[in-house]
Amino acid sequence: MDYQKILDQIHEELTYKDALGKVASYIPELAKVDPRKFGMHLYCDDASHFSFGDSEERFSIQSISKVFTLTMAMQLLGEDLWERVDVEPSGDPFNSLTQLEYENGVPRNPFINSGALVIADILVSNLQDPKRELLEFVRKLTGNNTIDYDLDVANSEKSTGYRNYALVNYMKALGNIKNDVEPIVDFYFHQCSLAMSCKELAQAFMLFANRGKLLETEEKIISKTKTKRINALMQTCGFYDEAGEFSFEVGLPGKSGVGGGIVAIHPSKYSVAVWSPLLNKKGNSELGMAALERLTTLTGFSIF
Amino acid sequence: MDYQKILDQIHEELTYKDALGKVASYIPELAKVDPRKFGMHLYCDDASHFSFGDSEERFSIQSISKVFTLTMAMQLLGEDLWERVDVEPSGDPFNSLTQLEYENGVPRNPFINSGALVIADILVSNLQDPKRELLEFVRKLTGNNTIDYDLDVANSEKSTGYRNYALVNYMKALGNIKNDVEPIVDFYFHQCSLAMSCKELAQAFMLFANRGKLLETEEKIISKTKTKRINALMQTCGFYDEAGEFSFEVGLPGKSGVGGGIVAIHPSKYSVAVWSPLLNKKGNSELGMAALERLTTLTGFSIF
Amino acid sequence: MDYQKILDQIHEELTYKDALGKVASYIPELAKVDPRKFGMHLYCDDASHFSFGDSEERFSIQSISKVFTLTMAMQLLGEDLWERVDVEPSGDPFNSLTQLEYENGVPRNPFINSGALVIADILVSNLQDPKRELLEFVRKLTGNNTIDYDLDVANSEKSTGYRNYALVNYMKALGNIKNDVEPIVDFYFHQCSLAMSCKELAQAFMLFANRGKLLETEEKIISKTKTKRINALMQTCGFYDEAGEFSFEVGLPGKSGVGGGIVAIHPSKYSVAVWSPLLNKKGNSELGMAALERLTTLTGFSIF
Amino acid sequence: MDYQKILDQIHEELTYKDALGKVASYIPELAKVDPRKFGMHLYCDDASHFSFGDSEERFSIQSISKVFTLTMAMQLLGEDLWERVDVEPSGDPFNSLTQLEYENGVPRNPFINSGALVIADILVSNLQDPKRELLEFVRKLTGNNTIDYDLDVANSEKSTGYRNYALVNYMKALGNIKNDVEPIVDFYFHQCSLAMSCKELAQAFMLFANRGKLLETEEKIISKTKTKRINALMQTCGFYDEAGEFSFEVGLPGKSGVGGGIVAIHPSKYSVAVWSPLLNKKGNSELGMAALERLTTLTGFSIF
Repeated sequence: MDYQKILDQIHEELTYKDALGKVASYIPELAKVDPRKFGMHLYCDDASHFSFGDSEERFSIQSISKVFTLTMAMQLLGEDLWERVDVEPSGDPFNSLTQLEYENGVPRNPFINSGALVIADILVSNLQDPKRELLEFVRKLTGNNTIDYDLDVANSEKSTGYRNYALVNYMKALGNIKNDVEPIVDFYFHQCSLAMSCKELAQAFMLFANRGKLLETEEKIISKTKTKRINALMQTCGFYDEAGEFSFEVGLPGKSGVGGGIVAIHPSKYSVAVWSPLLNKKGNSELGMAALERLTTLTGFSIF
Repeated sequence: MDYQKILDQIHEELTYKDALGKVASYIPELAKVDPRKFGMHLYCDDASHFSFGDSEERFSIQSISKVFTLTMAMQLLGEDLWERVDVEPSGDPFNSLTQLEYENGVPRNPFINSGALVIADILVSNLQDPKRELLEFVRKLTGNNTIDYDLDVANSEKSTGYRNYALVNYMKALGNIKNDVEPIVDFYFHQCSLAMSCKELAQAFMLFANRGKLLETEEKIISKTKTKRINALMQTCGFYDEAGEFSFEVGLPGKSGVGGGIVAIHPSKYSVAVWSPLLNKKGNSELGMAALERLTTLTGFSIF
Repeated sequence: MDYQKILDQIHEELTYKDALGKVASYIPELAKVDPRKFGMHLYCDDASHFSFGDSEERFSIQSISKVFTLTMAMQLLGEDLWERVDVEPSGDPFNSLTQLEYENGVPRNPFINSGALVIADILVSNLQDPKRELLEFVRKLTGNNTIDYDLDVANSEKSTGYRNYALVNYMKALGNIKNDVEPIVDFYFHQCSLAMSCKELAQAFMLFANRGKLLETEEKIISKTKTKRINALMQTCGFYDEAGEFSFEVGLPGKSGVGGGIVAIHPSKYSVAVWSPLLNKKGNSELGMAALERLTTLTGFSIF
Repeated sequence: MDYQKILDQIHEELTYKDALGKVASYIPELAKVDPRKFGMHLYCDDASHFSFGDSEERFSIQSISKVFTLTMAMQLLGEDLWERVDVEPSGDPFNSLTQLEYENGVPRNPFINSGALVIADILVSNLQDPKRELLEFVRKLTGNNTIDYDLDVANSEKSTGYRNYALVNYMKALGNIKNDVEPIVDFYFHQCSLAMSCKELAQAFMLFANRGKLLETEEKIISKTKTKRINALMQTCGFYDEAGEFSFEVGLPGKSGVGGGIVAIHPSKYSVAVWSPLLNKKGNSELGMAALERLTTLTGFSIF
């Protein structure tokens, strides 16, 4: 399979000029990004790399970070985790309070905001310095020690993050938050501000394409079973209210963020990251979705 | 891989005596089934068969029939189908009217009751004799001309199917039903009453494990792309409010019915059907779910 | 109090030309009405009458009929009625299925469609010939034997009344409907088709301004307590999703219909009916609401 | 009308021993109250007073305070107020987030928590020292300068008031809160902590029975029209999810609080307050509801 040729074809076919989407504007820092950015990076299980465009430029990974924090929480709590958060698709816009109201404060899955805030609460309870340890975890997965939070983004989110404050307070009222509100949202806004490139994301997510082990050293980070479960969750819940559509069009487990990034994996084959800041109405990168659809069509294999 | 040995181990490990579930009782005919029934049949892509227990006894396939009617509707309408029904998981109990109310009568996916009734409406519009043609379709997939509707079950559903009448009338009020109410629900109650064995279901679903072609003759029934999409839908929406849980535990696309049957496929590897009438609280076969979880664990491969 | 002068002033101030509303179009028959129609009739507890405009022309009373059927059901069942339907405002558009879903098929009050259909079910259970007996009841209240159903309207509603069929079927699924679907909706569509004038409506509703007795003969139709309760229900639930607004602006118990009629009463003072077919967005007569607001302002007394 | 005899009869008929309700326990301070407390005070428009039991003992008025803050906000903003909060009954439990989600952050009415928090936001915007000015307002209405906040209750609410923090943050996210979160909830928790007796509440609410004027001095506090509107709001929205029931049983405008107090008024006749801390399932005083039902039955007049 000539992956580079396929990526080049995708690069040629797709351009931001045809996109109807808009850059995320709900926080001022995100709105500053250049809408023309477009990059893709594919990392094969034989350690070969393929890419195009702005694949080495860092951007705000936003909700993609939820996969990292979930992985850390699964390492810490194992199956006990699932008393605090469910594993079902939400069927509702990504920050719905209604569902919490009817289900006693237990979020539908760890990838909607309420679920990620419960995961943040768990990490705050179980780690000495959660912000530092998350950074160490991501640096280890990528072998790159310069990855860091973007404090301007973190502060920008904090100053406008009333909806997330509402979610934490509401779940605390319902008994599913153990710590004070402030350290949880502080951690959460930091995790969302992580700045990474497509190349770094593809490297980090190789873990999930490689049954829980680092590809280069074969060091085991999480068990095969847990890897399978994280992949299943990405498949059914990784794309806000558009998980079905992504599964339907692309057929790979993945996770998107409002910074315009998407990462997806093909188990035992590759991990791939794509970035274009123009978002469709559901909040997923328009070119990113299209690029991954083309990838599975041109390579001829999805998981289905 | 010694599938028969694995099936035998599953048969040994699991028994209806340990199950907490209950036989479906919402229609009198279904409540008559023997709760001790338990069978499983695996059909490999090399045409080999493996099974245990009551694998050749027919039962009411109920919602599993929605995969057959969806396949027929995709043959007829192609992409136009998706204007009438969405492809997202529902996040709500399987017959919710609330979602329809907020989304203008467009069901979330073709496997919830409202979505299957829209599919029924489409078949009633496009086929001369939809009941006969569905039967012919299923008989062709299995090569078995004795498969038929169970008219006692169909009549029993009709006499108590007020919720389905409510759904059709409501969607008609919202403009998403084209035919009269009666022929639609008549067709729908017939499709649900189809009686098939685990062996026959595994044979019929080999289509979806074999990229849209019959395994024996390689005759193409639907395109590869459509097959992939049906599989993606089974993955994200095949198990009512428990699709995430099934994906999480089993990691295969599949479809369940309240008759206690479940069919799942592993693309390019096998299709498998299991039957035990005892249902968990979400309406899926308790032993069936467990048997499939054991199967992917013991074989060591899911799609993730 | 010179009521005629006040009515004349209202007639002068308000005109259909300033109204932004639209004639109800959901059934063809209702859409045929002349939008310029405007009439009002006030009936005083000293038996004096005041009116303007098209006050003696009959129109389709639609939901106003729900007060008559509720009164008959209260005569028949007394307090047992409240096990089948609640007395709380709905807070939702007038034909919401969502609320039924969360409250086990018990409608919020007898004036939303679902509640009126439960009342219809009760009358079908308890009366020999409900359509004839409703007619006799209304004829008695008005002393006018020519009042009748408009069969064109009734048939028109039936042929497009899928939403009401959905409601009855859904409540039957939830166990709160005792009869077959057809006779219930047949009765319901007939009651809605009753044709009455403002004068006849004001006469009929004098019952509720006169503590349950006919004004002329002092014959007791229902008890004082039941009258008080019906008035309380009209106050809190008589105007679909705009009951608070009406209470706030007008301050009288009343009931509206999509035919453009509104009846209101001031206990021990008067009953008043107004008709203009132009409906605001909530489905209440725009001029009717304004006329009643002017009435209580110009007379200087509401119940508050 | 011998009101004292009627009150004595009510006192005799009703006892806390028969009540099934429970003292509010959601904040520790409220749970400390003696469940046997029971008092009632009626203040007539001829300035005569009638009472029984613990009518002069102060208790936490809680949500009854929302009528005072609404009155102040209406003085300040007039009709502009209604762009920020609606006047419709909620049809949902008293602190629902779901409704806000569907209606863009505009609370259904000023008596549910979200609505009262918007009113608090308005007072924080428009008053120099809102806590002091609320105290002065209530002291003026009662002529009693010793009325004050109970700081133990206010602090107790603050330390457990996550749901209210959630509401303010959520409405701020939706653009309907202008100030910082902290001063709003601080003011809100103080208003709820106001301690008043039945006698003082009856005196304060005479305003609403007397068309907006103090009874003793005839000083006008708010206009007749605004008084009518506040009364209409109490009628349709004063009792959480039980407004219809109260209207149905009692037939007077009123307001309840989880401290066990209820105040009601009969326009141009009397204001009446009752207190018993045992709450029914909907959060209203069980004996209080019963006492007021007996009052309107024994006096023979409600507003209907």
